[in-house]
Amino acid sequence: MDAPIRVLVLGTGQMGSAMARLVLARPGLELAGACARRPGRAGMDLGRAIGLDRELGLPVVHDLTEALAQSHPRVALQATCSRLAEARDEIETLLRHGVRVITIAEEMACPAATDPDAAAALDRLARDRGAALLGTGINPGFVMDLLAIALTGVCAEVRSIRVERINDLSPYGPTVLESQGVGLSPAAFRAGVEAGRVAGHVGFRQSIRLIADALGWAIERIEERREPIVSAVRRETPFVTVEPGQVAGCLHTATAWREGTAAITLVHPQQVRPGLEGVVTGDRIEIDGSPPVRLAGSPEIPGGQGTAALAVNMIPRLLSAAPGLHTMADLPVPAAWLGDVRNRVRDRERLGDPAEEAGR
Amino acid sequence: MDAPIRVLVLGTGQMGSAMARLVLARPGLELAGACARRPGRAGMDLGRAIGLDRELGLPVVHDLTEALAQSHPRVALQATCSRLAEARDEIETLLRHGVRVITIAEEMACPAATDPDAAAALDRLARDRGAALLGTGINPGFVMDLLAIALTGVCAEVRSIRVERINDLSPYGPTVLESQGVGLSPAAFRAGVEAGRVAGHVGFRQSIRLIADALGWAIERIEERREPIVSAVRRETPFVTVEPGQVAGCLHTATAWREGTAAITLVHPQQVRPGLEGVVTGDRIEIDGSPPVRLAGSPEIPGGQGTAALAVNMIPRLLSAAPGLHTMADLPVPAAWLGDVRNRVRDRERLGDPAEEAGR
Repeated sequence: MDAPIRVLVLGTGQMGSAMARLVLARPGLELAGACARRPGRAGMDLGRAIGLDRELGLPVVHDLTEALAQSHPRVALQATCSRLAEARDEIETLLRHGVRVITIAEEMACPAATDPDAAAALDRLARDRGAALLGTGINPGFVMDLLAIALTGVCAEVRSIRVERINDLSPYGPTVLESQGVGLSPAAFRAGVEAGRVAGHVGFRQSIRLIADALGWAIERIEERREPIVSAVRRETPFVTVEPGQVAGCLHTATAWREGTAAITLVHPQQVRPGLEGVVTGDRIEIDGSPPVRLAGSPEIPGGQGTAALAVNMIPRLLSAAPGLHTMADLPVPAAWLGDVRNRVRDRERLGDPAEEAGR
Repeated sequence: MDAPIRVLVLGTGQMGSAMARLVLARPGLELAGACARRPGRAGMDLGRAIGLDRELGLPVVHDLTEALAQSHPRVALQATCSRLAEARDEIETLLRHGVRVITIAEEMACPAATDPDAAAALDRLARDRGAALLGTGINPGFVMDLLAIALTGVCAEVRSIRVERINDLSPYGPTVLESQGVGLSPAAFRAGVEAGRVAGHVGFRQSIRLIADALGWAIERIEERREPIVSAVRRETPFVTVEPGQVAGCLHTATAWREGTAAITLVHPQQVRPGLEGVVTGDRIEIDGSPPVRLAGSPEIPGGQGTAALAVNMIPRLLSAAPGLHTMADLPVPAAWLGDVRNRVRDRERLGDPAEEAGR
């Protein structure tokens, strides 16, 4: 049998570590190394860095070129950032080495949504090097776009789409909480929105673009609103305490207009401990079409766990795909392939040496 | 711009007619003809045959070879039967002419489930002729397999999958009602199951195989049960009257065993007027995994309308696919592409002349 598929993980935070642990557990994959942006992590044993209680005998590396030279990966999983601009350098380095890249950077779920030139350049680079690139994640990448798209498949007509995702931020640390304005006064929240510090959800434009492209819709404009979710009660997590009158999270909505009507509405209130005020978390997709379709689940599909699983589950799909930039909407549906990943790659050649393939 | 994509419809019953009407409505598609198995329909104007209040100036044709010669289709939609054995001749004729085929014959959603040799032969024939073949439909093809597969994509582990579809047979005519034993006494129902007249749902083996193949599961055995749904009340539809004590439908279940546990459980009670006994129709998918995932919708996605839409919506997907036999699980997710279908076909060459392509 072919050698295991060597996987390099970029990022050793919560998401990168979760992905690395999944790679270790999946037959046919080999965790070939990890690269950390924080220099302080360099040299640390990889096992310890990703939260195992054993050493793996591989050091975490700070420099990506060094990591590539040491690990010879076939696939890289990027979990270092949210924005295309921050993700791009690493991705280009990886593609230039013929490595196939799966990133959970939110803007990479559909890079054409914010930077069509960058998307085209990444697509060209990937094709030139016989590599491939995919952005994925629970949201964007699954709940608010891919699932909605799939459900339109049963419709003869679609008038509008509405997706609501009510989730619980309680497991998340300071970076996420700050981006949602958790713990601020309502006035500070509004000032934070103005200043761009309270960003809310990153991904609406990507989800809207994925849906619009799948349906052939021309979107005229997108409206976003970020409102404070002001708590009536005390809400406590390991990372923050919200007093009554303070902000427990951000109600972020986006509406995409087409031919004068609200064609796509995405509603995403994110807060800590929603249950304390009786808010039930969950995902809900509604297609106003012929036939109408509604599907909902509670609680919400967990964002962290789900995103890590999606990234690893898409490895065989991306290894079977043509070179170039992909989105979740143009590859076969994700699936938890639980067998040996090598048996799932359609074109066996793609298991070969990346450098050799890039040279063809 | 290229000429519209010519579509031939096989079958002018309820499903074939619904598909033909959708083809007429979708920009970039042209309804090139229809072929009816019942000789009595031959010569009838196609518009009248599919329930329009206008003529289309094209006659319904009985002989498939004649229909091909007259209509020069790029794509054929087959809505003539449920079983692979009944579907195969027409499909082979179409593929031999280089026509891409989408069929709603239930067993064709995964022909390898009941006849791997036939599946392999169809795959070879399609590849030889530069054609492609897909079986689709709401069930099998979407609710009990594709959606479940997609939801496992967010899971690191999957222990078991359960899908329940409670639907309403009230819109259906005598053929469907007889296959579900509607109107029989419980004793006659059981005798009908024994004799194969009460078949219940056709599609469990296909859905199970699609799921198992997507997850890399080896299924050891499949158990099916068909139980009468005995009505406590009088249930009336345009096609049947069920008296109290008679059978209102069939509770058909299938369980797929793997490593000694029930890995896949499919529950599909089909009956007329379930609401008269307070039964709420709907679809429900439950993944027992890490994380667990549950998604449900009520009422159920309508089978007839949804199947017709899926077949037409998959046209651009199949035209963009490589030659060969496909399943819903190996193509990109379905989507209601509402723009011009010609703009959705990735490889423009595939819009060319089928005969020419077959000769390559």
